Amino acid sequence: MTDVLPHIDGVPGFKVAGVHAGLKDDVALDFALLVSDTPCTAAGVFTTNQVKSAHVLVDMERLEKKRTGYRAVAVNTKCANACTGQQGIDNALQMARWVAEKVGCAEDEVLVMSTGVIGTQLPMDKIKRGIELAAEKLDGGREAWQRTAEAIMTTDTRPKIASLKQDDQFTVAGIAKGAGMIAPNMATMLGIVVTDAALEEAAILPTLQKACDKSFNCISVDGDTSTNDTVLLLSTGKATGGEIAQPLVDVCRKLAQGVVRDGEGATKFITIQVFGAESDASAKAIANTIATSPLVKTAFYGGDANWGRIMMAAGRSGVTLDPKQMKLWMAGGDTERRELLLFADGLPTDYSEERATAIVHEPSIYVTLDCGQGKGHAVVWTCDLSHDYVSINGHYRS
Amino acid sequence: MTDVLPHIDGVPGFKVAGVHAGLKDDVALDFALLVSDTPCTAAGVFTTNQVKSAHVLVDMERLEKKRTGYRAVAVNTKCANACTGQQGIDNALQMARWVAEKVGCAEDEVLVMSTGVIGTQLPMDKIKRGIELAAEKLDGGREAWQRTAEAIMTTDTRPKIASLKQDDQFTVAGIAKGAGMIAPNMATMLGIVVTDAALEEAAILPTLQKACDKSFNCISVDGDTSTNDTVLLLSTGKATGGEIAQPLVDVCRKLAQGVVRDGEGATKFITIQVFGAESDASAKAIANTIATSPLVKTAFYGGDANWGRIMMAAGRSGVTLDPKQMKLWMAGGDTERRELLLFADGLPTDYSEERATAIVHEPSIYVTLDCGQGKGHAVVWTCDLSHDYVSINGHYRS
Repeated sequence: MTDVLPHIDGVPGFKVAGVHAGLKDDVALDFALLVSDTPCTAAGVFTTNQVKSAHVLVDMERLEKKRTGYRAVAVNTKCANACTGQQGIDNALQMARWVAEKVGCAEDEVLVMSTGVIGTQLPMDKIKRGIELAAEKLDGGREAWQRTAEAIMTTDTRPKIASLKQDDQFTVAGIAKGAGMIAPNMATMLGIVVTDAALEEAAILPTLQKACDKSFNCISVDGDTSTNDTVLLLSTGKATGGEIAQPLVDVCRKLAQGVVRDGEGATKFITIQVFGAESDASAKAIANTIATSPLVKTAFYGGDANWGRIMMAAGRSGVTLDPKQMKLWMAGGDTERRELLLFADGLPTDYSEERATAIVHEPSIYVTLDCGQGKGHAVVWTCDLSHDYVSINGHYRS
Repeated sequence: MTDVLPHIDGVPGFKVAGVHAGLKDDVALDFALLVSDTPCTAAGVFTTNQVKSAHVLVDMERLEKKRTGYRAVAVNTKCANACTGQQGIDNALQMARWVAEKVGCAEDEVLVMSTGVIGTQLPMDKIKRGIELAAEKLDGGREAWQRTAEAIMTTDTRPKIASLKQDDQFTVAGIAKGAGMIAPNMATMLGIVVTDAALEEAAILPTLQKACDKSFNCISVDGDTSTNDTVLLLSTGKATGGEIAQPLVDVCRKLAQGVVRDGEGATKFITIQVFGAESDASAKAIANTIATSPLVKTAFYGGDANWGRIMMAAGRSGVTLDPKQMKLWMAGGDTERRELLLFADGLPTDYSEERATAIVHEPSIYVTLDCGQGKGHAVVWTCDLSHDYVSINGHYRS
């Protein structure tokens, strides 16, 4: 595997900008624009929430009609543009139209993304200003990508950036944002991945879907699903040769793990591996239930090796299980390791409580559960549930 | 409806005791015993968790074999007796045997319940001591019931007690405990309801199940499901006449609401009413998703009228919805009222933000959601998610 880098030194054909349009009250960057020199093949993976942002509805409709010819993506923060009716749709279309005017392309060659409070209309004067400012700042270098990643942040404390250069053949690079409302059955909040690798029109959506299944669909912060979740993939197709599938997974996974590591109020990064389930789907259901259990997550936060709660969560996942066949291990770190066996043969082992407590005090914890039934396997990544999560979300709108 | 009282002035034929057996480190009551003068018809509703406490497994087996002849129920705290293998089963059986010796009945006429940490074995010397102490203190009066309700508490801050005397015909009385690990798809943590009303052997389980569906299955604190959840109903059948179904619902509902009001760290009591759904099941799925959403619950805690999160949660419930048909109201209090219309026709109304904020600062909040689809209806009760929930559960075992 080629190393995934935490920065982007440019992707041939793409320019980006992150600016302060006045959407956020302070001076923080709050509006982002990405432009391609040439028309791109594109695909999107969107939230499964029935209440969808107007931005999501507009993008879904465009990408359903055609997957080629895309030139730009614009992202606003502070306003989700969800629950905003026809005016919300009109505003999303107007935002795309202004971008098209600046870029010099057709309005249906522009995609839009948004994040923020649900149920308020877009401040269109600020959106217009953001587009104008960003269009002047477009640049392909590392600093421009850094500012763009920062400009899509909400409660994130740091930008999520990943890139990979495959054998001098092509580059895959992405940015993402998201810290709360992160559930297992969705993409993430927002992610944009670009590449110069060649991607057929028919292949781009399944390729993106598969990558999301192995990355953004394996993370959980709080089990809530946003109205705005979108991951977009754009490809200029200018590079020749090379297979993009695995590099795309690597970049998406780095971004997804970045989202969990920066989960709202998170103090610990937790990997849940489930194997020996009857199917991969069962394994994932069990892993997701453990990863979203408030009782499991608060115990990790408190540094309490209360592994009984992991068994409780597995037991309520809706999957038929036999505790007598199950085994549970914990280890420190974020790579696969079965250090301390806690439960086997239907009862606790003679484990060292001191060692268990030491493990759950580490910044990364690796949990492994063997269901003893079959060959189903899944890995999900999550974080703990802290006082700060409650503080951050108790006063989100203010 | 006859008034449901928050105390129990005795139920003909039943004696109870709550004592300190040394299970809890301080001097708190920690062991409870309930004895009937005559054999009772009995039924139980148990956790759906696949990882079940040994106490639950023993009770389930007994009640499957026969529903008559029960004389006693014993409850220990501090140890869930779950994930404890064959020794756990042996210990549960021994606990019942000791009770039977004291009461003077057959061992299979005793039921057992437990609550506490998962994955530790019962301290049998303390269990024995609890049975001996409780057997000496058995009494039918109000104070004994109060102590018994206190003796089954864990993180509860107050006992849950409810009783109802129906037209001088019969009495229905119950106690419950539970504050965390409260999910919609289960009973509660522990509940014992007794009556002298006549209940046929064939009718007692369906009667209890229906009452649970309208009470304990309508509450949610954190969406987690315990390994130990049990609600037992015992009837001496000595009273003649009267219909127990509705009185039983009334008592169970009072207990269930008591559990939510005393939810771990809860500062607010929240009712979620959903109507206009395609079916009652859809309405309940939507209501439960709203009631377990960490983002909805933290917003209520913070006093932020962030109603967009209620729409978000409804949208991710797995039910097909059309935001344009939906309406959302909020009001203060715990009885049905549609005061402030927040969302209709696909977008926010021109509501007063000041009034919305005032409502979410009240101790009880009534949320009503109209899906605009059909006649499905559901009501669930929940609480907010506070800093104290995290504190309580971060260090539960210590």
